Amino acid sequence: MPFDPTEHPHRRYNPLTGQWVLVSPHRAKRPWQGQQEKVAEEQKPTHNPNCYLCPRNKRITGEPNPDYQKPYVFKNDFSALLQDTPAPAESKDPLFQTALAQGESRVICFSPDHSKTLPLLTVEEIAEVVKVWQQQLNELGEKYQWVQIFENKGAAMGCSNPHPHGQIWANSFLPNEVAKEDQSQRRYFAEHQSVMLLDYAQRELALKERIVVETEHWLAVVPYWAVWPFETLLLPKKSQVKRLTELTAEQSQDLALALKKLTTKYDNLFETSFPYSMGFHGAPFNGENNDHWQLHAHFYPPLLRSATVRKFMVGYEMLGESQRDLTAEQAAARLRELPETHYKNTL
Amino acid sequence: MPFDPTEHPHRRYNPLTGQWVLVSPHRAKRPWQGQQEKVAEEQKPTHNPNCYLCPRNKRITGEPNPDYQKPYVFKNDFSALLQDTPAPAESKDPLFQTALAQGESRVICFSPDHSKTLPLLTVEEIAEVVKVWQQQLNELGEKYQWVQIFENKGAAMGCSNPHPHGQIWANSFLPNEVAKEDQSQRRYFAEHQSVMLLDYAQRELALKERIVVETEHWLAVVPYWAVWPFETLLLPKKSQVKRLTELTAEQSQDLALALKKLTTKYDNLFETSFPYSMGFHGAPFNGENNDHWQLHAHFYPPLLRSATVRKFMVGYEMLGESQRDLTAEQAAARLRELPETHYKNTL
Ligand SMILES: O=P(O)(O)O[C@H]1O[C@H](CO)[C@@H](O)[C@H](O)[C@H]1O
Ligand SMILES: O=P(O)(O)O[C@H]1O[C@H](CO)[C@@H](O)[C@H](O)[C@H]1O
Repeated sequence: MPFDPTEHPHRRYNPLTGQWVLVSPHRAKRPWQGQQEKVAEEQKPTHNPNCYLCPRNKRITGEPNPDYQKPYVFKNDFSALLQDTPAPAESKDPLFQTALAQGESRVICFSPDHSKTLPLLTVEEIAEVVKVWQQQLNELGEKYQWVQIFENKGAAMGCSNPHPHGQIWANSFLPNEVAKEDQSQRRYFAEHQSVMLLDYAQRELALKERIVVETEHWLAVVPYWAVWPFETLLLPKKSQVKRLTELTAEQSQDLALALKKLTTKYDNLFETSFPYSMGFHGAPFNGENNDHWQLHAHFYPPLLRSATVRKFMVGYEMLGESQRDLTAEQAAARLRELPETHYKNTL
Repeated sequence: MPFDPTEHPHRRYNPLTGQWVLVSPHRAKRPWQGQQEKVAEEQKPTHNPNCYLCPRNKRITGEPNPDYQKPYVFKNDFSALLQDTPAPAESKDPLFQTALAQGESRVICFSPDHSKTLPLLTVEEIAEVVKVWQQQLNELGEKYQWVQIFENKGAAMGCSNPHPHGQIWANSFLPNEVAKEDQSQRRYFAEHQSVMLLDYAQRELALKERIVVETEHWLAVVPYWAVWPFETLLLPKKSQVKRLTELTAEQSQDLALALKKLTTKYDNLFETSFPYSMGFHGAPFNGENNDHWQLHAHFYPPLLRSATVRKFMVGYEMLGESQRDLTAEQAAARLRELPETHYKNTL
């Protein structure tokens, strides 16, 4: 019996994190009697008087938001990180190690319009969001090693407010996931004298098996080692770009287009406002030579079968390793076939 | 301003996995307007004619379950792993690596009584479960390097059937999490000539800050590096035990008691059937010297504030690192204070 990746369980290796994933393609056939997700409210008002992110409304602190028209950034009222945290005592104890964590947490409203989400914004409006991300990176990168730009979208992803927004957490340290990627890319660069994720993009462009979206400068694939059912990796196609702040005006504009196309396909998959966590990884601001770094964005969406049935990364996944129920190629094919115009809006 | 771990964000290091966790104790104060979990049905029948795990009922395959009275094991009808999977072609390509994954998945019904859960079983009944786990380990360890025993409890943890049951996945490989623990324990043993988790148990017994349950032979703590709000680590107290199968009769019986006490406290925390994923890690069956290994169980429960509000490990957590909203000591104190008799049943 020859090995068939669409039939036979196997493991795949993620060269960015050094972790394996168990692929069990036949598992998607099992019936599901478990939890159903709530579907997001279909019709939201453009301004919601009870939303603490809408223009002019009061926030939890009592302070009102300005009447903003473009992406608007403010300090998170419940920041997980603070600027002036004192350092814990140093400890050489291998079992009880504590380290300093300073930082800042900010919120970015993508649009004043409560009823929108990224895919429902125009490419121009998304380009404004990209511009603000770049400004934030420039500013916070002066002071912090790491700036994590991300979005939690949808109640299934712990998002507590449907107003289109993301977050920016600046850190005085390199968080786990970033430290792993830094190390792996560095090792690859030393061994191959080339940039891992640029090599990878070239290979995916040639193989054409896992491509979801392609624009002039950007490529979105379901990576070979994807963990989440419809996970994607968004990459520069043609050249090395270490950080969001290094993009040319043309590459930035084209990124907005790629984001619009990718998030539109996501919404179209189950004709629902598709939940995910997404975020950017680029070279840290650690003063080191970062020639091994390639900017990229990860999209981690939880849905598996429908708008209401998600993948649970529990049990075996928490204690053993991540496991997926369809191949990356199957997921990519489904996303690739979908239209690039939004099911709600054919403009 | 001196550093205060109950006030100031900081990072803690997990010596078992080599990962850091961000602790943001003040974050628990923020209001929550996000997703609410469904509370589990309060009164379940002892036999449910629609449950495919109850005695005598038909499974998805059409095959009926026997009229079992004690813990009952059968092959998972939708196994993620198969015994006879062929090997993928070997590849030296650093970006596209595939590896063989063979194995078996089994289901273990803890009790014939549909209405029970682990904390509602008697210590004697739990001891029967421990015995079956040991038999399964003995049998599957003959053939596979790794046998993951685990339980997903509650709809919030992707459990699709409330009948008390767990799973057993045998693997021809060491999954990620186990490989990391193997490496860390090996390194510690080489450096300190002692067993990491035995040293750790001694330290926790002396410090008394994170203890949740203590029996003659077992200790449950919220580990210093806990990620989930009420995560616990269950450890042998007095001596090295490499695997579940090496327990004496007395240690096994006492494990049943420790499991009863710990899961009872969990249910008592929010007076709800407490969801979690739990599982055992012990020395692999890889023919190597495993003198560095100490048996332990991890409990990963998602709830944070109440029976309906969970912690979401999303966004920053997926892209950066895990983050918790109260300290391990705060969580341990809350669990420690709870009664060891179940809120539903004062027997
Ligand atoms: O096998 P079950 O209980 O149907 O499925 C559950 O446990 C598995 C093993 O932890 C997970 O892979 C699934 O995502 C989860 O829903
Ligand atoms: O800050 P929010 O959106 O209220 O909270 C959400 O995102 C955070 C950062 O990813 C997570 O730590 C929280 O668990 C999640 O609910």
